[in-house]
Amino acid sequence: MAIVVQNIERTPLELVDGLARSGVSTVHEAQGRVGLMQSFMRPIYPGERVAGNAVTVSVAPADNTMIHVAVEQARDGDILVVAPTSPSDAGYFGELFATALIGRGVRGLIIEAGCRDIRELQELGFPVWSRYVSSQGTVKETLGDVNVPIVCAGVLVSPGDVIVADDDGVCVVKRLAANDVLAAALAREEKEAKNRARFLAGDLGLDVYGMREKLAAKGLKYV
Amino acid sequence: MAIVVQNIERTPLELVDGLARSGVSTVHEAQGRVGLMQSFMRPIYPGERVAGNAVTVSVAPADNTMIHVAVEQARDGDILVVAPTSPSDAGYFGELFATALIGRGVRGLIIEAGCRDIRELQELGFPVWSRYVSSQGTVKETLGDVNVPIVCAGVLVSPGDVIVADDDGVCVVKRLAANDVLAAALAREEKEAKNRARFLAGDLGLDVYGMREKLAAKGLKYV
Amino acid sequence: MAIVVQNIERTPLELVDGLARSGVSTVHEAQGRVGLMQSFMRPIYPGERVAGNAVTVSVAPADNTMIHVAVEQARDGDILVVAPTSPSDAGYFGELFATALIGRGVRGLIIEAGCRDIRELQELGFPVWSRYVSSQGTVKETLGDVNVPIVCAGVLVSPGDVIVADDDGVCVVKRLAANDVLAAALAREEKEAKNRARFLAGDLGLDVYGMREKLAAKGLKYV
Amino acid sequence: MAIVVQNIERTPLELVDGLARSGVSTVHEAQGRVGLMQSFMRPIYPGERVAGNAVTVSVAPADNTMIHVAVEQARDGDILVVAPTSPSDAGYFGELFATALIGRGVRGLIIEAGCRDIRELQELGFPVWSRYVSSQGTVKETLGDVNVPIVCAGVLVSPGDVIVADDDGVCVVKRLAANDVLAAALAREEKEAKNRARFLAGDLGLDVYGMREKLAAKGLKYV
Amino acid sequence: MAIVVQNIERTPLELVDGLARSGVSTVHEAQGRVGLMQSFMRPIYPGERVAGNAVTVSVAPADNTMIHVAVEQARDGDILVVAPTSPSDAGYFGELFATALIGRGVRGLIIEAGCRDIRELQELGFPVWSRYVSSQGTVKETLGDVNVPIVCAGVLVSPGDVIVADDDGVCVVKRLAANDVLAAALAREEKEAKNRARFLAGDLGLDVYGMREKLAAKGLKYV
Amino acid sequence: MAIVVQNIERTPLELVDGLARSGVSTVHEAQGRVGLMQSFMRPIYPGERVAGNAVTVSVAPADNTMIHVAVEQARDGDILVVAPTSPSDAGYFGELFATALIGRGVRGLIIEAGCRDIRELQELGFPVWSRYVSSQGTVKETLGDVNVPIVCAGVLVSPGDVIVADDDGVCVVKRLAANDVLAAALAREEKEAKNRARFLAGDLGLDVYGMREKLAAKGLKYV
Repeated sequence: MAIVVQNIERTPLELVDGLARSGVSTVHEAQGRVGLMQSFMRPIYPGERVAGNAVTVSVAPADNTMIHVAVEQARDGDILVVAPTSPSDAGYFGELFATALIGRGVRGLIIEAGCRDIRELQELGFPVWSRYVSSQGTVKETLGDVNVPIVCAGVLVSPGDVIVADDDGVCVVKRLAANDVLAAALAREEKEAKNRARFLAGDLGLDVYGMREKLAAKGLKYV
Repeated sequence: MAIVVQNIERTPLELVDGLARSGVSTVHEAQGRVGLMQSFMRPIYPGERVAGNAVTVSVAPADNTMIHVAVEQARDGDILVVAPTSPSDAGYFGELFATALIGRGVRGLIIEAGCRDIRELQELGFPVWSRYVSSQGTVKETLGDVNVPIVCAGVLVSPGDVIVADDDGVCVVKRLAANDVLAAALAREEKEAKNRARFLAGDLGLDVYGMREKLAAKGLKYV
Repeated sequence: MAIVVQNIERTPLELVDGLARSGVSTVHEAQGRVGLMQSFMRPIYPGERVAGNAVTVSVAPADNTMIHVAVEQARDGDILVVAPTSPSDAGYFGELFATALIGRGVRGLIIEAGCRDIRELQELGFPVWSRYVSSQGTVKETLGDVNVPIVCAGVLVSPGDVIVADDDGVCVVKRLAANDVLAAALAREEKEAKNRARFLAGDLGLDVYGMREKLAAKGLKYV
Repeated sequence: MAIVVQNIERTPLELVDGLARSGVSTVHEAQGRVGLMQSFMRPIYPGERVAGNAVTVSVAPADNTMIHVAVEQARDGDILVVAPTSPSDAGYFGELFATALIGRGVRGLIIEAGCRDIRELQELGFPVWSRYVSSQGTVKETLGDVNVPIVCAGVLVSPGDVIVADDDGVCVVKRLAANDVLAAALAREEKEAKNRARFLAGDLGLDVYGMREKLAAKGLKYV
Repeated sequence: MAIVVQNIERTPLELVDGLARSGVSTVHEAQGRVGLMQSFMRPIYPGERVAGNAVTVSVAPADNTMIHVAVEQARDGDILVVAPTSPSDAGYFGELFATALIGRGVRGLIIEAGCRDIRELQELGFPVWSRYVSSQGTVKETLGDVNVPIVCAGVLVSPGDVIVADDDGVCVVKRLAANDVLAAALAREEKEAKNRARFLAGDLGLDVYGMREKLAAKGLKYV
Repeated sequence: MAIVVQNIERTPLELVDGLARSGVSTVHEAQGRVGLMQSFMRPIYPGERVAGNAVTVSVAPADNTMIHVAVEQARDGDILVVAPTSPSDAGYFGELFATALIGRGVRGLIIEAGCRDIRELQELGFPVWSRYVSSQGTVKETLGDVNVPIVCAGVLVSPGDVIVADDDGVCVVKRLAANDVLAAALAREEKEAKNRARFLAGDLGLDVYGMREKLAAKGLKYV
């Protein structure tokens, strides 16, 4: 208990960046509809789409000690993922943290708790997905862990997993699956581009996806 | 069970468009403060104000089969209204659906569940009012109904009722009442314009609405 | 029961304006992390930062009688603070109220209930922090109080206390503490400016705040 | 607006009583999994199972005027169904109401709001299913309707529909469907009795419901 | 900050005990429908009805330090009232605390957070009203205050105020009002006894409370 | 995807039964305050205290297919742990399932969704901890997994982990830690017995836990 794992395996950034381009909804579908954080995780301002390697942080409620510890462990291409050991809406994170993290190349924060300095974070361009927005201050009393697997917003996150986040929410891709998921995401985008062309031409999903027979067989009646 | 009603009575579009101009709060007042969906129904991006004829869709949780069926039933001036048979935050709807619906002249979506592709929907200019935002994928396994009366976010919606939606929320106007409600809305706007002029001139609501005597009679004391 | 206190002590506007410049998160920290309203109080549109003297209003659920009464009591530099006697998401407040209040120099509204006319309020530049957005109409039947102490969103608010509100939330500063809190806020800003410079230079919070020894003493292990 | 419908069609009590014997979960299944109120409707004390004819009541938030009006309309075998026009957790109902209703043969109350005098209601044996328990007092200022269709906890309820309620929740059976639903419920009970015997004998649902082939066809793998 | 007020004024126990006999709903009505805690405060087991002098405790989230401090300040006839400085569902309180408090004559606990050892507390007969039930452990790191005014579940509680709690919820009576509120509660009980007799005899609230004319004047129509 | 792991390692039942005797709050403390499910997981009836080996089940929303599959995998001393792939309050489980599971020696169910037949389950003595109670029926259309690690109510559960559940909630003990945790739990009980004796004798936690000096050092003031 209360350990900091310093050397973690990370996912190569070319995979991470590819997943960012696909975005949350495509990646989530591409990996079989798993890994999505609960829908209460929302961006503090709209319009961002990022991906990064997870640096995981377990914190006590309303205590940001371990985020300070985690900053030192974070490096270029990382995203901090923070979960409290019991529910808290306190504002663990603000613009000073963001200033420090931007300097280290960190791309964002995922926190199942509160965040503050919303205006300043948007001005800095440091994206955060949080459960709450709150100014509530935190203390520095209780230890936690950095870079051990945690459950954040209903999803198991291991250090070095890829976090993808945008206006749709937050998705976690297992490190060892990142290569396959990226391939599947690209294939899905290609297929969707074809479908989009058909929809633009006026085709119906009932035909594009071949649903009519199945629906009739299940007993759907038109009256 | 599992039926699609193909020919529904719709409200004439000149009434629908008139109600759109008045907006949700005025229409809701004009029809006697009924028909408002619960306040958890929020626009996925701000700034839209639309109205349309309801095409109602009853769906299984996390199953978007019947939205595909409903697309075929939708036509110019419609709004899809979707309610799950038990609560779900899954992301039933995204940009491919919107692409198909825009081609058919559909004006928006009301869904007491989740929506995804937020950024893309805003770029397409296809407004959605939903309870949740979520990438969570859906399946195509279970039938439901199209164009039968449903309860969506606490309000009974029949096919062909008028849906009015803007940043304030979503309101339902019964098809046969649309004409009267529009007239009442216009009358209310006229009256509000007069009141606005008085407020701009510095008058108080206590006087504009003649409240002082009534308040005194009820026992209000100034100290 | 049902009284209106007409002459209240207010906080001098130079203190109020100073607190507005510091913003919610700084003020909340500066006064020892008290006085923050619950995190469900959110701005109806982003980007505002205001402060004002509290005019407190206790209202019945879905009844806006006493807001009309309170308008007459409000003056330049005030903020209305409204709490219902039992929970309500009704839309107590809209653009006509805002028109009247802008004319009196009132700077905003804090309401632990609903607000409507979101688009119009943004156009008027009248900021509101509310628990809900809703068109639901209200009646004028039941009395309440103006300018007596109330609990709003978990915080005791007395008339003449300073309300500070921005994208981070809403904070209440006791009238008699305003001078000291402003001084503490300015001191904090100065200290934060120095820390920001260190973070920009690449220093770590672990060193800036002298945490390393304490963490080791508590048993933190690096592996 | 503000009407009391005095003569409503009711469902014969032998059907009502038959549905009570089946209970909520069986009735809900028997009528095709519709009509179930949202799961936040809970009994104020456990162990009751009742059914009755709906007398519907639309009330203002925190205003119990119309329950007084509805009492006069209620008679032997009825259940009051109360929904506020906007959300309220106020305690609309207590032991004096129950005393009056017991004298009229009324069997219970369904209210999407609050109830009080829990201990006394249990002693009286008057069951209530509510969203909240609260002592919060109500006023008598605003009119509503009695015996018009309402939406309560997500379900459309018309006067004379059958309400079935027990520890599992609350279900609404349309008046004209009551006969068929009762038959289907009895058939379901018979079938469940046979299945229960098989389960007691150690059979598996996979075999009782013939699921193995379908699961294999869908691709389920045992490893 | 972080102070313990040792000598507080308490309400005489004969008043406290009188209020306990009336119960929450009667006391709440008798004092004008104020002072009721929010409806999420529920008893951990049913059937208790107590009153006591408030010993107030402000605690950090998931930190029970100050409850230990408060125990020493509590004496015969007291009730502990605990509120966290930011939301927490942690289990601050269990059977060892109850053992200590029972020995001091303390009558119960009100906590806007979590409680554990539910079974054991029921066996000990020590009643608790809490927002949550949870085993989540707490630390002893951060100071708070004892016997300063706090806001608990939406109500301002000062040390020595009377807490009344039963299955309906929790109500706070100001210390200096206790005598008058008790008199009003007894008067209300007497009046309710008369009304109860009338309801038992079959009278209607419409007549008992003289509502018919008022309803007709407001426009209620019987059809 | 969609696999059933048939041979899982289980924790020896003497360890499981020992953990049951300690109960949730003690076990949770003994293993360092980790592994506790979120506090919305509540027993459907009070008074049970059980432990068992986890058989994990991942289900689609409102689809109980995989619980049927899981029954076959369950054996004496097991507890089913069920989590939906997206939120659902549907009633996945009722008395027929319980009948089958009792016959196999299964000790209970943990489900982050809904349960029905509450009365019957209590009569059968089959304990369930669920997030919701609901009659809402489920379908048998979509596959899921049995005996793969899942996140249930915020906690990672692997097959063969020990589930401990009672009126305080639900706690998960890792299979390989069960022996150590049991030892720690027994040690804690012994220590608590000594502390209980001191509290019964009138000692204070401030002295039993040696807190006075630390509090003074942190700056606590008695006034």
